[in-house]
Amino acid sequence: MAATRTETDSFGPLEVPADRYWGAQTQRSILNFPIGWERQPVAIVRALGVVKHACAEANKARGALDDRIADAVIKAATEVHEGELDDHFPLVVWQTGSGTQSNMNANEVIANRAIEILGGEVGSKDPVHPNDHVNMGQSSNDTFPTAMHIAVATTARDVLLPGLRKLAEALEAKAESFADIIKIGRTHTMDATPLTLGQEFGGYAHQVRMGIRRIEAALPAIHELAQGGTAVGTGLNSPKGWGEAVAANVARITGIGFVTAPNKFEALAAHDAMSEMSGACRVVAASLFKIANDIRFLGSGPRCGLAELKLPANEPGSSIMPGKVNPTQCEAMTQVCAHVMGNDAATGFAASQGHFELNVYKPMMAYNLLQSMQLLGDASVAFTDNCVEGIEADERRIDALMRESLMLVTALAPEIGYDDATAVAKAAHANDTTLREEAVNLGFVTPERFDEVVRPETMIGPK
Amino acid sequence: MAATRTETDSFGPLEVPADRYWGAQTQRSILNFPIGWERQPVAIVRALGVVKHACAEANKARGALDDRIADAVIKAATEVHEGELDDHFPLVVWQTGSGTQSNMNANEVIANRAIEILGGEVGSKDPVHPNDHVNMGQSSNDTFPTAMHIAVATTARDVLLPGLRKLAEALEAKAESFADIIKIGRTHTMDATPLTLGQEFGGYAHQVRMGIRRIEAALPAIHELAQGGTAVGTGLNSPKGWGEAVAANVARITGIGFVTAPNKFEALAAHDAMSEMSGACRVVAASLFKIANDIRFLGSGPRCGLAELKLPANEPGSSIMPGKVNPTQCEAMTQVCAHVMGNDAATGFAASQGHFELNVYKPMMAYNLLQSMQLLGDASVAFTDNCVEGIEADERRIDALMRESLMLVTALAPEIGYDDATAVAKAAHANDTTLREEAVNLGFVTPERFDEVVRPETMIGPK
Amino acid sequence: MAATRTETDSFGPLEVPADRYWGAQTQRSILNFPIGWERQPVAIVRALGVVKHACAEANKARGALDDRIADAVIKAATEVHEGELDDHFPLVVWQTGSGTQSNMNANEVIANRAIEILGGEVGSKDPVHPNDHVNMGQSSNDTFPTAMHIAVATTARDVLLPGLRKLAEALEAKAESFADIIKIGRTHTMDATPLTLGQEFGGYAHQVRMGIRRIEAALPAIHELAQGGTAVGTGLNSPKGWGEAVAANVARITGIGFVTAPNKFEALAAHDAMSEMSGACRVVAASLFKIANDIRFLGSGPRCGLAELKLPANEPGSSIMPGKVNPTQCEAMTQVCAHVMGNDAATGFAASQGHFELNVYKPMMAYNLLQSMQLLGDASVAFTDNCVEGIEADERRIDALMRESLMLVTALAPEIGYDDATAVAKAAHANDTTLREEAVNLGFVTPERFDEVVRPETMIGPK
Amino acid sequence: MAATRTETDSFGPLEVPADRYWGAQTQRSILNFPIGWERQPVAIVRALGVVKHACAEANKARGALDDRIADAVIKAATEVHEGELDDHFPLVVWQTGSGTQSNMNANEVIANRAIEILGGEVGSKDPVHPNDHVNMGQSSNDTFPTAMHIAVATTARDVLLPGLRKLAEALEAKAESFADIIKIGRTHTMDATPLTLGQEFGGYAHQVRMGIRRIEAALPAIHELAQGGTAVGTGLNSPKGWGEAVAANVARITGIGFVTAPNKFEALAAHDAMSEMSGACRVVAASLFKIANDIRFLGSGPRCGLAELKLPANEPGSSIMPGKVNPTQCEAMTQVCAHVMGNDAATGFAASQGHFELNVYKPMMAYNLLQSMQLLGDASVAFTDNCVEGIEADERRIDALMRESLMLVTALAPEIGYDDATAVAKAAHANDTTLREEAVNLGFVTPERFDEVVRPETMIGPK
Repeated sequence: MAATRTETDSFGPLEVPADRYWGAQTQRSILNFPIGWERQPVAIVRALGVVKHACAEANKARGALDDRIADAVIKAATEVHEGELDDHFPLVVWQTGSGTQSNMNANEVIANRAIEILGGEVGSKDPVHPNDHVNMGQSSNDTFPTAMHIAVATTARDVLLPGLRKLAEALEAKAESFADIIKIGRTHTMDATPLTLGQEFGGYAHQVRMGIRRIEAALPAIHELAQGGTAVGTGLNSPKGWGEAVAANVARITGIGFVTAPNKFEALAAHDAMSEMSGACRVVAASLFKIANDIRFLGSGPRCGLAELKLPANEPGSSIMPGKVNPTQCEAMTQVCAHVMGNDAATGFAASQGHFELNVYKPMMAYNLLQSMQLLGDASVAFTDNCVEGIEADERRIDALMRESLMLVTALAPEIGYDDATAVAKAAHANDTTLREEAVNLGFVTPERFDEVVRPETMIGPK
Repeated sequence: MAATRTETDSFGPLEVPADRYWGAQTQRSILNFPIGWERQPVAIVRALGVVKHACAEANKARGALDDRIADAVIKAATEVHEGELDDHFPLVVWQTGSGTQSNMNANEVIANRAIEILGGEVGSKDPVHPNDHVNMGQSSNDTFPTAMHIAVATTARDVLLPGLRKLAEALEAKAESFADIIKIGRTHTMDATPLTLGQEFGGYAHQVRMGIRRIEAALPAIHELAQGGTAVGTGLNSPKGWGEAVAANVARITGIGFVTAPNKFEALAAHDAMSEMSGACRVVAASLFKIANDIRFLGSGPRCGLAELKLPANEPGSSIMPGKVNPTQCEAMTQVCAHVMGNDAATGFAASQGHFELNVYKPMMAYNLLQSMQLLGDASVAFTDNCVEGIEADERRIDALMRESLMLVTALAPEIGYDDATAVAKAAHANDTTLREEAVNLGFVTPERFDEVVRPETMIGPK
Repeated sequence: MAATRTETDSFGPLEVPADRYWGAQTQRSILNFPIGWERQPVAIVRALGVVKHACAEANKARGALDDRIADAVIKAATEVHEGELDDHFPLVVWQTGSGTQSNMNANEVIANRAIEILGGEVGSKDPVHPNDHVNMGQSSNDTFPTAMHIAVATTARDVLLPGLRKLAEALEAKAESFADIIKIGRTHTMDATPLTLGQEFGGYAHQVRMGIRRIEAALPAIHELAQGGTAVGTGLNSPKGWGEAVAANVARITGIGFVTAPNKFEALAAHDAMSEMSGACRVVAASLFKIANDIRFLGSGPRCGLAELKLPANEPGSSIMPGKVNPTQCEAMTQVCAHVMGNDAATGFAASQGHFELNVYKPMMAYNLLQSMQLLGDASVAFTDNCVEGIEADERRIDALMRESLMLVTALAPEIGYDDATAVAKAAHANDTTLREEAVNLGFVTPERFDEVVRPETMIGPK
Repeated sequence: MAATRTETDSFGPLEVPADRYWGAQTQRSILNFPIGWERQPVAIVRALGVVKHACAEANKARGALDDRIADAVIKAATEVHEGELDDHFPLVVWQTGSGTQSNMNANEVIANRAIEILGGEVGSKDPVHPNDHVNMGQSSNDTFPTAMHIAVATTARDVLLPGLRKLAEALEAKAESFADIIKIGRTHTMDATPLTLGQEFGGYAHQVRMGIRRIEAALPAIHELAQGGTAVGTGLNSPKGWGEAVAANVARITGIGFVTAPNKFEALAAHDAMSEMSGACRVVAASLFKIANDIRFLGSGPRCGLAELKLPANEPGSSIMPGKVNPTQCEAMTQVCAHVMGNDAATGFAASQGHFELNVYKPMMAYNLLQSMQLLGDASVAFTDNCVEGIEADERRIDALMRESLMLVTALAPEIGYDDATAVAKAAHANDTTLREEAVNLGFVTPERFDEVVRPETMIGPK
């Protein structure tokens, strides 16, 4: 049996593992919420460390917290946000909807670690009390959403945006290298007029660049921190200027331009900023879905599909079909995108469900949004490294397909009219002949004029 | 200026159009809810007529309603459910969440029409009062959900199920006529082992048949009627046996096996049966999406796509590209399916939002679900008539593609092992040669044995 | 039988109603797509008129279109965008996914009306041809998404944003008039520390103001027009500078800052801008849901609920319970919001489903987004007029509730510590006494000190 | 540095950790898919063990697999499904969409463990080859969906259904013990006519019972196993009767009534059965949301809310407000329900995205559905244990509220008519008096008659 020590809260004493810093409220949450397998995301744990660090600094600066205690709290909180104490945060997502228990988990871990630093007895709340000292000037109701925003902003900076930028660059590089390859266009999945493969990839790259802008446009609302609202948004039990001071500290610690939220009531009771960011991720997901889906179809084959692109072969594709290679990176990406759409539905729903002064879907919203951001960022990197960068064009195939297309007839329409051009295309389709043959046979143009007008290389832009 | 007459309710008098039967509460709703363009679905209006008819009969039978009044109410209500008074139901979906105003719309129209039948003065509430007589024994809280269930059940019977059955039959007929056409299979969008086109269409048909079963499985909960719960589910102001009597009348009038709901509290406060049916529609929508999407890809071309199927050409496909034909029925269907998924999300959300004794998302849930059912039914018919029935197989193309596939090597694997078979496929791919050449060259089989083993016609089932 | 005339397209002749301007392709669509009851939104019809007007001007300016024909087309197109020809647009949403048939509907109506203006024979295509003249330089693939963006931008300007601004102003006015009413705060739906009713409404107002910003932030991408991409994004059959010229004309006609899309491939194949705007509407919907839901709970009663607010009584609330008044505007609003979430799910899904050079979910996406915008705008106006503006505070009730709250003890915590303050609250709760009694009895403070510290009026902000 | 051994696949050699049984294809997947933090659910890993066990038995029985090899494979596979080898399944959800790599993970682990059992060299593929022996007669395309169905069915049996049944029983017990407590009903969140608290909880219990039926109704489609379809549904490389034999073995091993799917093409290319079960979970989630949301509002207070129920206090509720107790189990439950709705949206979307012979969203669908089932089951247990079972009624409060309600006037309506009853209720509301006073004052009834008619105990059912 593992060694334990006794911790207490207002509900009484509880045994906790002796080698963990958490206290009675954390342990109580473990017992009361045996639900699922999803722990609070590490990004939330680290962000709680940032908040506690920033608040202790502000409390020290205003003289509310004794220097010695403040310094120990700051040191312990720093260990939390630097990831050294991840194993001391055992709670699952499915707990109280304000994240109170995870806030208390941070308070308890930091208090006990600070007690240890100061040579006290872990669990004694002396000389550092989790509520009176570590949580000073804070409520879970402002602390947890502050941590949510910090986690989202850092994940955007460190995972999502770098992933999308990498993908955009790779697509742009392909667009450039494919600039001279003229191919058949497809609308309604049917043969249409030509474009270059570079133009096609340029469209993909533009989607990703716009996606980056959309994520960036959702960041300012995320940079607004709830800290200073305390229990209901009024800031009771916090000093004037507290929200500003803490936000400035958080900004310094993280290097991100956080500010205090202009309206703390909204910041506690609504999480529209989270919903907005989730919505931006949803738009990005749809973009990446379209790109990955197109690429797998353009690479379909090798002999019975469109087969215009050759995708990198990364692994055996089938346990039964020897030699099969599949567009597995496209599959991972499209699965991620579909999943992100579900996360967004959950987040949007939860955002509507605040009651009065508090929205109590905080951990669940954070879990969904952070997962979406991590998955989109990671999948963008894997998709770039293991698929996009290795894509090659099968130029022979592309050229052959393009030259067969009946939709080249479109170039004739301004010359002979829509109705006659239609007759040419229909005849060539019915007779399995070429447009040129039929256009001449039907007496609409001379062969020479046909060759002057119907030239794919002049059909890839306005005149 | 149109002529008006004065109608009154407990809030006072109001002018209503002289040529309409509705009264003050309906008019008040028009004034208070100028929201959007979506009227209550006709199926709801007709179903309210059924409810009022059934209740008046039950009230007459128990002697609570004077025969003369009862008969006039029954006649007027019958006109409502036979569609003769549709123009007297002007209210939009976005009103009170219990549908009270549409229930009152029915009460007012039927009362005034009954007064007219009895030679009284329209608007006088004499000798027929909208609340005391037409609404006798009823509350909007049980009447409107009863109408919802009636509308859903009749739409299932008259629109959705016939549409799906028609589609299933057409797909089954195609499966039969395509039974001997061996084609390349595609997994991960890549070439795989062969199957028959009939097997492929058989899979589609099976999906639709299962969808029919899913709709049918959701009907029993729809057949449970809330009537008899009155205001909060207790049945206050209704007589014992009332719910049973009304349900029996509704069953007789509609020819559908309605019964009284076993728990009226659930029937008013939750609309899980609506959510269940919407979920069944969502599964059907995913099935139809997959089928329509496959068919457009299999018909893609005519020269630069897969081009295994020839879809009917129903209209000019492009305003700029002469002669273009597009899979427009597939597009209508997939748009419908995507829309149904959105409707289902809205319905599922609304189902969770009941408070205490009442869910006040009734008109919105009815609108979404009825729209989904109508669209899936209608689109199934149009898709069958204008696409599925005219599909032809391009057998030459199908055969040519199938014979090129490297995945025929799978038949060799049990003979020479997975690893050697892989080597054969990879060599043929790399050298642009045939499997036969490489299998022999690599010394794994004799040409004769290859021809014995690698035969598409033996690869379309277990041995 | 109604009189008809014969119209033709490349599929042959068809009879159309003699009193309608549409031609054979429109009629063919009516026959091929008998699906549902949802017509193309009027905003789309009008926007198609704008596009045709703008294009005819550009064609005239570059000398491609004879002045006489151009002027007749411009006149006819102007009639379309001014709403005079709405009845000539019979098509439903569920048609070809590019909106080709609605584009042709516009081409046919304008051509026939222009022919009429010029004294020709309707249906003759002489001297105005729907494709060669009205559609000159255009494809449905760029025209329809251009119309979608125009419709969205005008609906934002004319319906959604004015509605939201009206609501924001009404909430701000209430926040000001309620500024001095101190009330109990509620977190987790449980009694919490006090705030003012003005602060509570200020939070609502802030949500709506942020929502306005979110809609505005989604507009720049909507202002980018696809026109000039023609069939696949290359601009084939359009002159250089065409996209810019048409966008400038559209901007002048509508008074909105439209520009040509920087990447036409993205503009045809993805509709991320529509998805982004839909996502913004979804965030707004969640905000409005929260506000309306709070208001109905705060107004719940009159005798057995929270009853802090008195909501306007607009109509009789129940067909069975005499004198009942319900928060019907809140119900219309929350139903709208739930519906918008469903629309957003559908739109987000559709945005991911483009294939190659075209997304063929255009009419369905436009229908969903335009409906969301119209409903949110209309519901905001109705909710403001018929609910928010008439809300009154029941100050006596608010004060009584607030003074009973045990959470006023929070003001004591900085003085006596969290653990002792907990003991006070628990004792008062258990003994059904006051905090003051218990705090003194337990020896934590003097009565005088209690009265100095626990003052609601000092608990509504930081110190 | 950890020790490694060399494993190979057709792409070449790779180093894998020496203390793990997985091989080259698993290792390659780790390298190629560094996406997110979500591993394949344990239920999938165990189910793959079941499949491999069942297949090896069938291969042994038909003499295709040498007894000695078969027995070793069976022993190794049994270790997998008994959970002894969980640590040897490192792959994430976001991989190839057929689950091929997780199937190969199972093949590799079982082959190596079987080799070890037989005294061979791990990694040598001798005498047990992962493809030729462990995967004999199988493709990932049928194996993985078979595992999905097994995992879903076992999670339904072991987690979801027991959780729901426990909750239903607890609610039924409360309904019984609250059977005689008459309380105010609330519709539109407003005071309505009375019902018993037992009736209210009876409605909740009925919702859960119906939910159990819905889950059970979705099981038959889950019990159909894809095994036997092999690569594309035809069953190539499997013997006749194979699907039946394997299904029978799976049924015996698990004790669940699995059968072979009647149409293998549907079973590989669509996952409508998963979507159906997810939809059933979504209906359950809406039910549980409503119940938990009602309970928190009925328990709101303690002094400023409805306060009809006393919920168990399980932990300190606030880090800043001393003595606060919150409905945290309701919050965990409603968060779970909101999350399940998102999962369902993702699953429904993915179900629509199959292409041709395969749906490649398998791991992502399994992850979402299994998570939903686990969360709903776990949360039902926690909610029952820590909330429902401890709920007490505050009978004094309930009685006081009920007696104040103006909606008791409804009992008068059949006696004095709707309009006069309205006048009574309005007067009592305006004058803050009782219904009795006003009814008598207005001359509608005598005091004695009022007392005979308006009796809450007679208002809780039909007469």
